[in-house]
Amino acid sequence: RRTGDPEVVYGEGKTPTQVVEILRTLHARHPERAVLATRLSAEAQARIAAELPAAAIDDVARAATLGPLPETRGTVAVIAAGTSDAPVAAEAALTVRVHGADVRRIDDVGVAGLHRLLEARDRFADADCLIVVAGMEGALPSVVGGLTGVPLVAVPTSVGYGASFGGIAALLGMLNSCAPGVVVVNIDNGYGAGVFAARVARNARSHP
Amino acid sequence: RRTGDPEVVYGEGKTPTQVVEILRTLHARHPERAVLATRLSAEAQARIAAELPAAAIDDVARAATLGPLPETRGTVAVIAAGTSDAPVAAEAALTVRVHGADVRRIDDVGVAGLHRLLEARDRFADADCLIVVAGMEGALPSVVGGLTGVPLVAVPTSVGYGASFGGIAALLGMLNSCAPGVVVVNIDNGYGAGVFAARVARNARSHP
Amino acid sequence: RRTGDPEVVYGEGKTPTQVVEILRTLHARHPERAVLATRLSAEAQARIAAELPAAAIDDVARAATLGPLPETRGTVAVIAAGTSDAPVAAEAALTVRVHGADVRRIDDVGVAGLHRLLEARDRFADADCLIVVAGMEGALPSVVGGLTGVPLVAVPTSVGYGASFGGIAALLGMLNSCAPGVVVVNIDNGYGAGVFAARVARNARSHP
Amino acid sequence: RRTGDPEVVYGEGKTPTQVVEILRTLHARHPERAVLATRLSAEAQARIAAELPAAAIDDVARAATLGPLPETRGTVAVIAAGTSDAPVAAEAALTVRVHGADVRRIDDVGVAGLHRLLEARDRFADADCLIVVAGMEGALPSVVGGLTGVPLVAVPTSVGYGASFGGIAALLGMLNSCAPGVVVVNIDNGYGAGVFAARVARNARSHP
Amino acid sequence: RRTGDPEVVYGEGKTPTQVVEILRTLHARHPERAVLATRLSAEAQARIAAELPAAAIDDVARAATLGPLPETRGTVAVIAAGTSDAPVAAEAALTVRVHGADVRRIDDVGVAGLHRLLEARDRFADADCLIVVAGMEGALPSVVGGLTGVPLVAVPTSVGYGASFGGIAALLGMLNSCAPGVVVVNIDNGYGAGVFAARVARNARSHP
Amino acid sequence: RRTGDPEVVYGEGKTPTQVVEILRTLHARHPERAVLATRLSAEAQARIAAELPAAAIDDVARAATLGPLPETRGTVAVIAAGTSDAPVAAEAALTVRVHGADVRRIDDVGVAGLHRLLEARDRFADADCLIVVAGMEGALPSVVGGLTGVPLVAVPTSVGYGASFGGIAALLGMLNSCAPGVVVVNIDNGYGAGVFAARVARNARSHP
Amino acid sequence: RRTGDPEVVYGEGKTPTQVVEILRTLHARHPERAVLATRLSAEAQARIAAELPAAAIDDVARAATLGPLPETRGTVAVIAAGTSDAPVAAEAALTVRVHGADVRRIDDVGVAGLHRLLEARDRFADADCLIVVAGMEGALPSVVGGLTGVPLVAVPTSVGYGASFGGIAALLGMLNSCAPGVVVVNIDNGYGAGVFAARVARNARSHP
Amino acid sequence: RRTGDPEVVYGEGKTPTQVVEILRTLHARHPERAVLATRLSAEAQARIAAELPAAAIDDVARAATLGPLPETRGTVAVIAAGTSDAPVAAEAALTVRVHGADVRRIDDVGVAGLHRLLEARDRFADADCLIVVAGMEGALPSVVGGLTGVPLVAVPTSVGYGASFGGIAALLGMLNSCAPGVVVVNIDNGYGAGVFAARVARNARSHP
Ligand SMILES: Nc1ncnc2c1ncn2[C@@H]1O[C@H](COP(=O)(O)O)[C@@H](O)[C@H]1O
Ligand SMILES: Nc1ncnc2c1ncn2[C@@H]1O[C@H](COP(=O)(O)O)[C@@H](O)[C@H]1O
Ligand SMILES: Nc1ncnc2c1ncn2[C@@H]1O[C@H](COP(=O)(O)O)[C@@H](O)[C@H]1O
Ligand SMILES: Nc1ncnc2c1ncn2[C@@H]1O[C@H](COP(=O)(O)O)[C@@H](O)[C@H]1O
Ligand SMILES: [Mg+2]
Ligand SMILES: [Mg+2]
Ligand SMILES: [Mg+2]
Ligand SMILES: [Mg+2]
Ligand SMILES: [Mg+2]
Ligand SMILES: [Mg+2]
Ligand SMILES: [Mg+2]
Ligand SMILES: [Mg+2]
Repeated sequence: RRTGDPEVVYGEGKTPTQVVEILRTLHARHPERAVLATRLSAEAQARIAAELPAAAIDDVARAATLGPLPETRGTVAVIAAGTSDAPVAAEAALTVRVHGADVRRIDDVGVAGLHRLLEARDRFADADCLIVVAGMEGALPSVVGGLTGVPLVAVPTSVGYGASFGGIAALLGMLNSCAPGVVVVNIDNGYGAGVFAARVARNARSHP
Repeated sequence: RRTGDPEVVYGEGKTPTQVVEILRTLHARHPERAVLATRLSAEAQARIAAELPAAAIDDVARAATLGPLPETRGTVAVIAAGTSDAPVAAEAALTVRVHGADVRRIDDVGVAGLHRLLEARDRFADADCLIVVAGMEGALPSVVGGLTGVPLVAVPTSVGYGASFGGIAALLGMLNSCAPGVVVVNIDNGYGAGVFAARVARNARSHP
Repeated sequence: RRTGDPEVVYGEGKTPTQVVEILRTLHARHPERAVLATRLSAEAQARIAAELPAAAIDDVARAATLGPLPETRGTVAVIAAGTSDAPVAAEAALTVRVHGADVRRIDDVGVAGLHRLLEARDRFADADCLIVVAGMEGALPSVVGGLTGVPLVAVPTSVGYGASFGGIAALLGMLNSCAPGVVVVNIDNGYGAGVFAARVARNARSHP
Repeated sequence: RRTGDPEVVYGEGKTPTQVVEILRTLHARHPERAVLATRLSAEAQARIAAELPAAAIDDVARAATLGPLPETRGTVAVIAAGTSDAPVAAEAALTVRVHGADVRRIDDVGVAGLHRLLEARDRFADADCLIVVAGMEGALPSVVGGLTGVPLVAVPTSVGYGASFGGIAALLGMLNSCAPGVVVVNIDNGYGAGVFAARVARNARSHP
Repeated sequence: RRTGDPEVVYGEGKTPTQVVEILRTLHARHPERAVLATRLSAEAQARIAAELPAAAIDDVARAATLGPLPETRGTVAVIAAGTSDAPVAAEAALTVRVHGADVRRIDDVGVAGLHRLLEARDRFADADCLIVVAGMEGALPSVVGGLTGVPLVAVPTSVGYGASFGGIAALLGMLNSCAPGVVVVNIDNGYGAGVFAARVARNARSHP
Repeated sequence: RRTGDPEVVYGEGKTPTQVVEILRTLHARHPERAVLATRLSAEAQARIAAELPAAAIDDVARAATLGPLPETRGTVAVIAAGTSDAPVAAEAALTVRVHGADVRRIDDVGVAGLHRLLEARDRFADADCLIVVAGMEGALPSVVGGLTGVPLVAVPTSVGYGASFGGIAALLGMLNSCAPGVVVVNIDNGYGAGVFAARVARNARSHP
Repeated sequence: RRTGDPEVVYGEGKTPTQVVEILRTLHARHPERAVLATRLSAEAQARIAAELPAAAIDDVARAATLGPLPETRGTVAVIAAGTSDAPVAAEAALTVRVHGADVRRIDDVGVAGLHRLLEARDRFADADCLIVVAGMEGALPSVVGGLTGVPLVAVPTSVGYGASFGGIAALLGMLNSCAPGVVVVNIDNGYGAGVFAARVARNARSHP
Repeated sequence: RRTGDPEVVYGEGKTPTQVVEILRTLHARHPERAVLATRLSAEAQARIAAELPAAAIDDVARAATLGPLPETRGTVAVIAAGTSDAPVAAEAALTVRVHGADVRRIDDVGVAGLHRLLEARDRFADADCLIVVAGMEGALPSVVGGLTGVPLVAVPTSVGYGASFGGIAALLGMLNSCAPGVVVVNIDNGYGAGVFAARVARNARSHP
């Protein structure tokens, strides 16, 4: 954890009791800043709601925060195609916010329905960084990357079946994007994309 | 070889002498129809030019025909993104023509440059079948498939490097296309796409 | 969704409540045409039966329709080898019908029992498009494709174990078919094959 | 090398000089029986022809024998689809012969041309063991295995391109054959298939 | 099903009711010969025991037979390394017996304990065919194949973890065996190995 | 090409003549800005040197520029471990410079020699964006990412052998980095990393 | 089992009853030495606790021992990065101890937090062998291997998601380590690493 | 480079001039100890022979040393099956020697010829560490590991074809070895195995 960054609890493989305990401890240590917990099971979310009423739970993102969110600087647009990509997009969005940048959400803009994407263009063209979330063939970052020169982080999701191989098809599509300047994170890694994009967006608004 | 279809010589792994000999024999048997030879090395093309002056050579497609081309029925639009995809697109186009359908070529319409693709829309929306050729992330069929309901055959190409795995990334992208009704052939298989699309286009103009 | 095509609900990952709600809404909007729902869990099917008695449920296809089916034009033959391929064949068949083409089912015709396949030949040779569904080694499309020049869409299924890799062996077999003009869709994607084949069959009977 | 089996020299990665030297030495040790050399480069074949005039060279099989071939017992039918599979089929056939069984060759019988295969049926139905060689989708063993109960060894070849992955598609097809009792060897391993099939054929004619 | 071979029911994916019904029907049609059912769940086995008391259940093989077993000709030795390989070895052994050859079982002879394997040598050296079952690195067929020239069918099992990839490591090991004349079947395919080996063993004792 | 970005010629698969011709044409159109050509063969570099003396050739990067480089804003540190990674690091560095940001090169700082990396820390801790180039296990981005919160783009290289799979091992290592906020581009894609990092660095110095 | 080594029971796939029975039998045979049981389910651990009160259970390692531990010679340091790697590290540590070497545990020393690793250096630099356990990108062995020349065994763990492929990314990272002299065992194989490291450590303290 | 270890030049991808120059420089700096150069092309070896006559060249290992070899402590046995594995075995052996341990070579002991391996047993049972080199199915380490408790490092080689995948089959076989205490290095990495084994062997003879 770098100074200034929030503490983060990775919920995967931890019991609800462990998650609650870690959140409580970290919050007690620095009540003036936010703690973020991700990859929370339904049980862990329920336990947090019951035992830490001050926590804010985002059930789509399967995440929670405890403590005041930081002031923001810069804006990240989070773009997603399908409803199945929503949990990853939500994890990315919350992570951005907790790391101190503003978030703009743009949903339902798949590559097979270009008109909606083109209509949304104004809403992402002036952001400081983009996060583009897509499963299946993972084509959305290439199309968005062709429409704007804003730094773009692509997040493949494990949405799909058969030869989608749990997100590999989307990951490969993004790594081979014909739009220059597309960078990629691990499958379903909304958190990593959020940390990175928040840094970029904050820096874009830091230097006089 | 089904009755009515042209004879085809697959040049890969055959010596120039073998290719010339087979072309000559097949042509002698049925001088009234075309023979198609594909995957021809530069040497094989040179030898055909020298020894079978009646042959027509398409050096981009790395292919040749000998004998009169059939009458056409129906139209196939062959759409390709980059110049590197040209050999595969040319093989598809020539195969379509030799199998008795008309061809319309649409080039340089990558997904990272949407305006060109949108401008070309009129030129493919009224075709009887589409062949969409793309390497790298293979996103073009999804975008085209979102713009039209014409039957669409996607051809992944081995263009790219690193995690493109000689066309696997494009193949996976196409198999996972979010546009419904996209079908796929093997990597670089312009020939197979051409045979299929010509059949579809001809049938679309056969029945009163 | 292109004009004229039915609305489709992809049931995977949706709760029974969500599925019923979307079906109801889409049906209310256009009661004069069919809505199709695919990949329905047993629970979702039960809930549809209980709450939408006008819906027709196809439990082999794990799918349902609500609203009147469209008139048909053209015929698609759906050919499958084994009983384990039945769910995918049924999804393909229902999708064809909902997209406005007639369906002819041909079952139990595996490549290791040629005589049955040869006997069935008359029933698929005059169709406007074929859908060939096969798991394991995926050889059926090659054999059928050698018997007829009707456009043929191959659907690999995830039937098998060990080195079948959940349908990859069948997928690769079909992509490498030695019969020219075989096109392929994603593993278990009866829906995609059905959309495509219905388009081809309808077009084959559209133009005077 | 088991007693009675011929000595075998695997030519891959050996210089022509090494191959000639080993052949000479092994032949001198047991002039009364055959030595087999496989995977010979054109250079190695030329050197053998020049320096060991008593050797018999099979340039399709890329192999050579030196010394008298053994008496035979039992018959192996070697079945192959395409001309590109010829080198592997020839390696298998020669290996069978050198290991003491008779060989019957059946060529040009691909699964996309069933009538030729069905016509050839009489020529393999009474063999003691079958070797079926096929590239691309590797479907031939399934079809042949459905026509006869003779023990059948399938050999995938590296013929093909794109998603054939140098023979992997054919290998997987054969491992997943829907015909029971199909066994498989490594890609292009005509030698291994030949050793095995000769053993089976000889044993079938050994016991009163 | 070839004449003379038993009928076989593949239990995977069938309900207990379906399995019982098919067994009953097939048995009624030919009460004078055996029916084999494989890949039976515990429930299916219980239902067979309850409803078809004449059936013989092999719970290690997860299989059952109904009707009199055929007379035998020839002997197959089934060799396995670990106790985890027992289900596959048992499936192979029962299949051999049902297809009319005798079975000799040799267990607990892993390659890391050579002395036990060498002691067992007499028990497999005079068999007519060998089935060698092994998981993990799949080395046993190479070692056994180096000790005898009896035709040898290798069966990889899905035993192992991590980089064993559900049997792929063993499968690859067997395909690359340095002992010539080793043939391979799909992972866990005791049934396929049994059919093949019984054919070989029976033929070895058929011809005067 | 977005307005303001330089024109880029991708040299792979183009003849020296083609490369020279495209460079000349693009330069003539906008002599006031730089054209970049990448992936140049030795022949292409030689021809450029001979025919376009005003071009600057970077033989380590296998790239060339023609026309005045733009003014810079912001700084990108390019960090590489081994000498074998030099071509990719050089391509990234030149791309950054041509896209209008300053470059700081840090070489020979592998993870197995921590002291050198720690000594270099001051030279990258105040950059606006980092590009970290590494082959083999691709561990360098994780270690650097643990030392600083500067946005970090990781570039896997195809350096290595055996189980490095032409850069796949490094790519996977970077996608799974335990340091949060590491983003990745395709194997050997110094160009893509450079475009992205230059955008980030320029933006970091744009807004008052 | 080599003379002097403890007996080991591999609990995976064994019922609690079987595990208890084998432990009891082996212990009765040699009450003077330890038996080790690994990969124990929670149920198996509970049954051992209930029925074999003399057994020592290590619930993090999912393992148990029965009988007196051997005297020790030499020291193995077991180094792990994350808490998720704890079960594998604990299995390795217990295996070392049961095989007669001393263990020193060093936890929470990931590559993204170098200062902690550097502080721990004194605690592993004088060990006789190191076991380094890491998931995700598997970079820890490279960094530790650069800090010391003590023989180092790397254990990849299946910790991670997406493109970590159940430990494959970590395994490949370790196989491609840029630190010379790093050796690797199978994913999650703390047992194998422990056996090996104990042998090395004991030998290092055996010879005068 | 740790103090006391020799300097090593990795020849892959370096020009002969570069290799000679680096060797000369390193030797000049410490003429009292050996420099090792590996992966040398034929040209590099020739240039070293011509320009550095004091160098010792091992053409099987494709390696060279310059300067006096260190005194030795402890013994490493290097065991290999086939002649094709010789280059890797030789690289391992030379590396061991240069790192200060004695080497014993044991060749031609494949798993398909057990008697030779069993005869060689005395020659490796008292070594301080074993290096076992094997291609194809990579079974040799399991068999050797079952015969002795000496620490054993397995080296897979890229020998083989088809489904050997350039050494992957052997690598997987070794990672899944049923003999406990087998550790593995990268494919063809004789150097890495040598460094590790020399450390183990030296330590085994260091402590009173
Ligand atoms: N069985 C299926 N397989 C693949 N895609 C499907 C299937 N059924 C529906 N779809 C696609 O899913 C879309 C509807 O997704 P949704 O809006 O999530 O219900 C449809 O327009 C189809 O493109
Ligand atoms: N074409 C082949 N494919 C695979 N293995 C072969 C082939 N030819 C020979 N072999 C094997 O290679 C061994 C001889 O290898 P070598 O001593 O290197 O010549 C023989 O005993 C066979 O087991
Ligand atoms: N080294 C490189 N690696 C990947 N893509 C590149 C590279 N250099 C140029 N490109 C891309 O190739 C395009 C130019 O391609 P072309 O028109 O074929 O010369 C540029 O717009 C970039 O997107
Ligand atoms: N955790 C483990 N991982 C891998 N192999 C193990 C493990 N524990 C025990 N083994 C091996 O399993 C053998 C015992 O197997 P079993 O006879 O089935 O209990 C031991 O001799 C070890 O070689
Ligand atoms: Mg998507
Ligand atoms: Mg493309
Ligand atoms: Mg099938
Ligand atoms: Mg074939
Ligand atoms: Mg085993
Ligand atoms: Mg590196
Ligand atoms: Mg880790
Ligand atoms: Mg070997």
